[in-house]
Amino acid sequence: MTQPPIVTPEGFLAHWQGHRRLTRRATEAFPEDKLFTYTAAPPMRPFGVMAWEIHQVSELTLNGLLTGEWVEPDWRQGSSTDRAKLLSDWDGLSARLDAEFPNVDLNFFAQTHRLPWGEMTGWEAAIYTIDNEIHHRGQGYVYLRALGIEPPAFYER
Amino acid sequence: MTQPPIVTPEGFLAHWQGHRRLTRRATEAFPEDKLFTYTAAPPMRPFGVMAWEIHQVSELTLNGLLTGEWVEPDWRQGSSTDRAKLLSDWDGLSARLDAEFPNVDLNFFAQTHRLPWGEMTGWEAAIYTIDNEIHHRGQGYVYLRALGIEPPAFYER
Repeated sequence: MTQPPIVTPEGFLAHWQGHRRLTRRATEAFPEDKLFTYTAAPPMRPFGVMAWEIHQVSELTLNGLLTGEWVEPDWRQGSSTDRAKLLSDWDGLSARLDAEFPNVDLNFFAQTHRLPWGEMTGWEAAIYTIDNEIHHRGQGYVYLRALGIEPPAFYER
Repeated sequence: MTQPPIVTPEGFLAHWQGHRRLTRRATEAFPEDKLFTYTAAPPMRPFGVMAWEIHQVSELTLNGLLTGEWVEPDWRQGSSTDRAKLLSDWDGLSARLDAEFPNVDLNFFAQTHRLPWGEMTGWEAAIYTIDNEIHHRGQGYVYLRALGIEPPAFYER
């Protein structure tokens, strides 16, 4: 059974990194004093806290894809309110992703794995990570609009 | 070169339909008088208008995948403010997707196509459609929270 792939590993990595670049721009678009304090709709979290969550889930997913171990992060460590630290960690993970994603065993995507939030295939885990990023970034776009700021173009990656 | 696929056609269809079910629940969660009128952050559109856009882009994408023709929708026709009509069209497309997506020529995903908004591969066009849905639904979640309504669980599909 040799079907043409819906997406190649290179295409999947490009997809993921494109979203990471866009989320980085959204993070930068916030006024520094609003990133970790402002919410457009309580009890929703500030966008900076969501961005840390995205970072930690992405790191978990890359590690899981590489090692088969899905260790729930210590979410509290993600709550630094220093944007420079967030962006620096973000860029470090983007570099790791470029360097290490090509090492992922492709059999991993079809196999079922035990994540902190349940069993899913490697594909489901990887795409869920990106979906979660898109979901929260979309929320950040409303925050930006409510602050009178035009968000970065969604179609630019 | 026979690599294990990152996602099978069945997996991709399940991914798409899972998001469609969640967006349907988000659409239903709005008070009927708010769906096409309320915005949490002007000049953003009401969620019902975004849902029609998602519907039209999804229809365009399914048609494009099946025929190779990507015809820009008449966006104005998508502006009915009757939720029952929106949900009925939505369900009709979900049924079409289940029935017709298996007929898509898998070579289509790697090929480059000319869409109304530029050239992209079939994979990029298909995943962009889903990403756009997640993005706007995430915005709808903020609208719901701002209205004091708990959105449907993101992880349930």
